[in-house]
Amino acid sequence: MNPEPYEIVELIRLKRDGGTLQRDQIDWLLDAYTREVIADEQMSALAMAIFFRGLAPEELSRWTHAMIASGDRLNCSHLSRPTVDKHSTGGVGDKVTLPLTPLVAACGAAVPQVAGRGLGHTGGTLDKLESIPGWRASVSQVQMTRQLEAVGAVICAAGLGLAPADRRLYALRDVTGTVESIPLIASSIMSKKIAEGTGALVLDVKVGSGAFMKAREPAAELAQAMVELGTAEGVRTVALLTDMSTPLGLTVGNALEVREAVEVLAGGGPPDVVELTVVLAQEMLAAAGLDDHDPAEVLASGRAMDIWRAMIGAQGGDPDASLPSARETEVVSAETDGVLTALDARAVGEAAWRLGAGRAQQHHDVQAAAGVELHATLGEAVRAGQPILTLHTDTPERFPRARDALAGGYRIGQDPAERPPLILDRIG
Amino acid sequence: MNPEPYEIVELIRLKRDGGTLQRDQIDWLLDAYTREVIADEQMSALAMAIFFRGLAPEELSRWTHAMIASGDRLNCSHLSRPTVDKHSTGGVGDKVTLPLTPLVAACGAAVPQVAGRGLGHTGGTLDKLESIPGWRASVSQVQMTRQLEAVGAVICAAGLGLAPADRRLYALRDVTGTVESIPLIASSIMSKKIAEGTGALVLDVKVGSGAFMKAREPAAELAQAMVELGTAEGVRTVALLTDMSTPLGLTVGNALEVREAVEVLAGGGPPDVVELTVVLAQEMLAAAGLDDHDPAEVLASGRAMDIWRAMIGAQGGDPDASLPSARETEVVSAETDGVLTALDARAVGEAAWRLGAGRAQQHHDVQAAAGVELHATLGEAVRAGQPILTLHTDTPERFPRARDALAGGYRIGQDPAERPPLILDRIG
Repeated sequence: MNPEPYEIVELIRLKRDGGTLQRDQIDWLLDAYTREVIADEQMSALAMAIFFRGLAPEELSRWTHAMIASGDRLNCSHLSRPTVDKHSTGGVGDKVTLPLTPLVAACGAAVPQVAGRGLGHTGGTLDKLESIPGWRASVSQVQMTRQLEAVGAVICAAGLGLAPADRRLYALRDVTGTVESIPLIASSIMSKKIAEGTGALVLDVKVGSGAFMKAREPAAELAQAMVELGTAEGVRTVALLTDMSTPLGLTVGNALEVREAVEVLAGGGPPDVVELTVVLAQEMLAAAGLDDHDPAEVLASGRAMDIWRAMIGAQGGDPDASLPSARETEVVSAETDGVLTALDARAVGEAAWRLGAGRAQQHHDVQAAAGVELHATLGEAVRAGQPILTLHTDTPERFPRARDALAGGYRIGQDPAERPPLILDRIG
Repeated sequence: MNPEPYEIVELIRLKRDGGTLQRDQIDWLLDAYTREVIADEQMSALAMAIFFRGLAPEELSRWTHAMIASGDRLNCSHLSRPTVDKHSTGGVGDKVTLPLTPLVAACGAAVPQVAGRGLGHTGGTLDKLESIPGWRASVSQVQMTRQLEAVGAVICAAGLGLAPADRRLYALRDVTGTVESIPLIASSIMSKKIAEGTGALVLDVKVGSGAFMKAREPAAELAQAMVELGTAEGVRTVALLTDMSTPLGLTVGNALEVREAVEVLAGGGPPDVVELTVVLAQEMLAAAGLDDHDPAEVLASGRAMDIWRAMIGAQGGDPDASLPSARETEVVSAETDGVLTALDARAVGEAAWRLGAGRAQQHHDVQAAAGVELHATLGEAVRAGQPILTLHTDTPERFPRARDALAGGYRIGQDPAERPPLILDRIG
């Protein structure tokens, strides 16, 4: 007869009607889904029921645990350095992982950064690094461990063995309108991060038009849920809520962002990128028990740049190679004198995406050189005719749709304007 | 690029977030699902969102219309008799379709009864009739029309051409925990009934433990929704809410129920079955404009029995053949003197199902002779040792589980007890 201990339809109805799934039921659910005993149409109905009913803390914790248990859990405890990682929920112009990873490694930690590719208007860390000639995202587990020991820093693609239940569920949620569920987001992020074996974790939860979470309250709820999940699994976890109402830094796009990241590593770069990099580094070092280091000083010393070069080189990249430039550019200038009173992250991200920096579907390619370069930031005075931003693309037929995306996304007024504080809150 | 006018994920999110689907969107949804452009996992997520958000009257009406439009709509308007049909939402011991169809035909109507097979604890009309040697459920459209003209009555299986979107969606809802949604139930029933081409329709919406709807309020809501849908599509529709807290009649099971139906056609049978048959016949005749006939009198005259014999014969059945009997029976007797104060429809239905009268999965067979025979009804005085019911099955290893199902399902007490009124309400 039926050798399975539960009936999936009963469990869907239980959650649908507001009940609580038990530990054994959750373990079975994710195991049976991985074994394909539970069909996609059943899991998507359950995901929608979870969208409406949520998961209680004990359900969410077990759900995450079961997603981790669906695959391998790496063990970094034999490394001579303490491990610490960072995860950002994704924003426009957020290239902070690039300078941050070598910076924290330069302070003595090992940073096993398993990163993703972009989908939609926020870029992916791997897409950015792939604009460096020769660089490869994929590393074996042996290489990862060796590089963590020797260099202290790896940024790479997730192997297929980490949280396979999450990989399948994530793809399913994307096509079934069940992405926007805080417990499902929290468990998806945390199962991957915990499986990668880090001892400590700093979460950068973005809030604003350019982020997945537009408002502060659900962002705080997500941050709280993730901190609890990490802590419960023995990972020292802290979260910052940071502003994503306007782009981070002055570049949005893959090679453009790498260039800016290298500027930061060289001791320059836009103040907001530097600030966020240093604050996150302080949090990571504190979580790793290395808080006697001052990341601002290490950044200025050039030691982080040395680690960057070693990290890129270890994955086949040439840190001295020139980055690709776009075939065509178009400048957008101020129509009047005034102050830049609005510069919307979402609009700029969407424009960069339409120029070719991002992908509409998982199997699409991105243009390494496409994107948006900003020449003014929120609150800055501008004069009529002064360039505000430059659009970059290899395919100039994309310019009109990018300009459409920008329409209404920036505004020049007469009143003063100020950027909101970058760090909104700290949870953990 | 994408030749489809809508993006399914957008529509799922629209409904999920409480929005209203537009007519064109609904038409596209059901058409694209039929064409398999929309995948099952997407439709099940939408069905779950509808479970939570419901469908507004105009959405439900268009949804039903689009389900009908996914297939053929029969045309019975060329018949010389007015057409009228009945649909029951299913109950324990509900064999009323069997005497009712020939009775209404004997009064001058044509009854195109497209019926189903049972799943779970309520039996299916086709399963019951298939216990008659030789009888075939499947008829061609040509035969259906010819039989309606000549005999006035057909009970048959739905052809594949009627509401194919419903067939696919119904099977999907069954495995994804999205059955219990009033708009989805209403549209499923009504799309099939309207597509079969009847001019008038009487709905028997069961309420109580043995029914799909346990409580009166959602049953009334379902009845109201169905009456509105039928009326909007030009079908004169009326609904009765009827009691299903205790079994209807004295038999539950396929051949057992056919035997009881024939008793009713012969002028006998249990009073509740006779009452419901006559009341439903009156409603059907009124809806068909034939209210000058008295069904009670026609039943007594034997004319309905003549139609029954012709109807069974026209589909290969032998009305004189003896019906199958179970290989084994077991009698359940009263433990004490008293009054039968409880006789739960659900428990009796479950027992019959476990004895082999019903199926657990769509492809299973049923036992023609299995079931439960009642020897006492609610409120009747019984003496210790007196048989209360007899269990019938071909596979005696099923007796213990059937007895388990009955445990607590009947009770002998000292206080008087009365059956609730059979007809609870009328809507239309």
